Amino acid sequence: MTLDTALIGEKVEQARRAVAEGDCDAWLVFCRETDETAEPTLPYVLGFDVVWPTAVVVGPDESTVVLGRHDAPNAERLDVHEVRPYDESMETALRETLAEIGAETVAVNYDRDDSAADGLTVGLYRRLQDLLPEREFVSAGEVVRRVRGLKSATELDRIRAAAETTVDLLGTAATAWTPETTEREIVADLHDRLRARDLGTAWAWDYCPTVHLGGESDVGHTLPGDHTLGQGELFHVDFGVRQDGYAADLQRLWVRGEPSPGLESVFEDVRAAIDAGHERLAAGVPGHEVDAAARETLIDRGHPAFQHAFGHQVGRVAHDGGTLLGPEWERYGDAPRGEVRAGEIYTLELGVETEWGYVGQEEMVRVTESGPEWIVPPQTALNRL
Amino acid sequence: MTLDTALIGEKVEQARRAVAEGDCDAWLVFCRETDETAEPTLPYVLGFDVVWPTAVVVGPDESTVVLGRHDAPNAERLDVHEVRPYDESMETALRETLAEIGAETVAVNYDRDDSAADGLTVGLYRRLQDLLPEREFVSAGEVVRRVRGLKSATELDRIRAAAETTVDLLGTAATAWTPETTEREIVADLHDRLRARDLGTAWAWDYCPTVHLGGESDVGHTLPGDHTLGQGELFHVDFGVRQDGYAADLQRLWVRGEPSPGLESVFEDVRAAIDAGHERLAAGVPGHEVDAAARETLIDRGHPAFQHAFGHQVGRVAHDGGTLLGPEWERYGDAPRGEVRAGEIYTLELGVETEWGYVGQEEMVRVTESGPEWIVPPQTALNRL
Repeated sequence: MTLDTALIGEKVEQARRAVAEGDCDAWLVFCRETDETAEPTLPYVLGFDVVWPTAVVVGPDESTVVLGRHDAPNAERLDVHEVRPYDESMETALRETLAEIGAETVAVNYDRDDSAADGLTVGLYRRLQDLLPEREFVSAGEVVRRVRGLKSATELDRIRAAAETTVDLLGTAATAWTPETTEREIVADLHDRLRARDLGTAWAWDYCPTVHLGGESDVGHTLPGDHTLGQGELFHVDFGVRQDGYAADLQRLWVRGEPSPGLESVFEDVRAAIDAGHERLAAGVPGHEVDAAARETLIDRGHPAFQHAFGHQVGRVAHDGGTLLGPEWERYGDAPRGEVRAGEIYTLELGVETEWGYVGQEEMVRVTESGPEWIVPPQTALNRL
Repeated sequence: MTLDTALIGEKVEQARRAVAEGDCDAWLVFCRETDETAEPTLPYVLGFDVVWPTAVVVGPDESTVVLGRHDAPNAERLDVHEVRPYDESMETALRETLAEIGAETVAVNYDRDDSAADGLTVGLYRRLQDLLPEREFVSAGEVVRRVRGLKSATELDRIRAAAETTVDLLGTAATAWTPETTEREIVADLHDRLRARDLGTAWAWDYCPTVHLGGESDVGHTLPGDHTLGQGELFHVDFGVRQDGYAADLQRLWVRGEPSPGLESVFEDVRAAIDAGHERLAAGVPGHEVDAAARETLIDRGHPAFQHAFGHQVGRVAHDGGTLLGPEWERYGDAPRGEVRAGEIYTLELGVETEWGYVGQEEMVRVTESGPEWIVPPQTALNRL
């Protein structure tokens, strides 16, 4: 196993700053048996799985990991934290760590609406309360959103590389296409190429890529079928590789032969809605306003509203948590009310179902102080097959 | 993706019985974005990942899944539950489902000490309380331990098959060994064989197998080194494949050339301790009493006590949760105080460090009403290289 020491060093340094500038005195990541019950922030602060209950404590100036003796050698090799192994109980080491930092307010990973900041389970929380009954804990949501959302230099490089690989593989899929090719064959071919390059997928393997050929194909996170592509119909694909631990998430479109004028105009409407959202995307803007800009443009042009958020953050996984560019629906909770920050990376995505197939587009952008930057060039015209 | 309909049907039927015979009126599995934050019980009741908040509700006679519209087609194909898709909020569908069952007491997945029954995160729990503010929830620990612990016929077949494959692969590793072979090469060879047969590992890939050659090798969940095996030294391996979704966990030993009499007698002491635990293992016995039987035998024979539990359950993963055959240490919580049940499958494992290497043994047994049954034949003599 290669420990990702450089990256974890960058992220822990970010975490220390987030604690120093935020409302808590320490950020406590508390987890166990992470092989089965993953703690989503662990890859940022430790990078390997643990078996026994483990506490990573990040203060404004230092950080410590309290963990089972068998897990300790990895932490020593990582060389980012002070390492305190225990045999029977972590209590003494945990208390000493918090006392040395002088931590009063301790933040732990729970968040009603942000799954990426919500790794602490109810039972582990009770266990923590039993270990430290005199303490109250606060939500680490803001720390996590800052650490996870603001991509470091290494992370930006890896996400861009994943997006470039994704575009590259999609190009080969289009080149390999013939009029007899089925959805299932396109997926199998892309999966073969992933295996050959030892790459993963940005979301569940069985659903990545999703491929839709023509107007008869069901849209959504569906499994590929036996559809082939008729004249004037659309080849739509939603795909992202996971490479060096980081993901991409893009949609691309091809048309077989000449597109009908009706199809061209829907594509332009989708483009216009993406552009409207792109224009609204800026540091300080609440996520739902970006969604609304895209949504209203699409509706104004006579199309039904899409039944999902306009955009989500991308990082270690396709759905990277934090602020969402989405409508204020109950199922999204507070995530669309968060403010966009410079340094975050988002998708911009929407589509319209037509008789020729699904006119779906998805691009990736990075927010900077001077405006959004495309991660890879966006699709601005229908590709021909 | 192949949905594991037959297995999920068996396990949901078990869950309905557990609810009918237990203290709650319904078992509610509540999760979201399970690709990153896995809910450990989801493979038993649904078998595919979901993106939006999802509720699987199991009553004494029926079960329902309330999930996002995009995730619904998989649930329809699974054909085990009534399927209620939603677009903006699950509230209405969830309330109707609980009302139709007439559920007063609803159990959710939290458990202080059993990570396999502790998938509900603090934020999701708060979200559930916001959705159903008039309700109180109880721990589903007992339901989960029954559903997960009592292996169905299909599960027993798969676990036995995984154990047989593990023994088979260990045999090939021993055959391929030469005096120049390093720990690293043994691990690489076993990993190649796993890839060739499209098999996974029972715990983290980098640490499965763990291989120790001779007395200089560090014991524990350690990475392989450049050690080779001297005359009279031990080749120790801890390994388990994951096959058809189920795991094995076994340790095996070989000695190079003639074992010294000292080594033979330690091996006999380890065997005697394993046998003492095996003899104590029976339905109704608390886990810690089984641990104590093995531990005391080893200490009586003049060895230091092992710093881990004597045995854990095996199922979908190597550490399958529930009752533990372990000492009553703080870090194990209540897990060692649980009672062993007929139908559960456990490891029995312990070892002694010696100048020749680690004399470690680990076997797998199934508890039945008429006593424990070995899953595969145990190692009763030192293998020779």
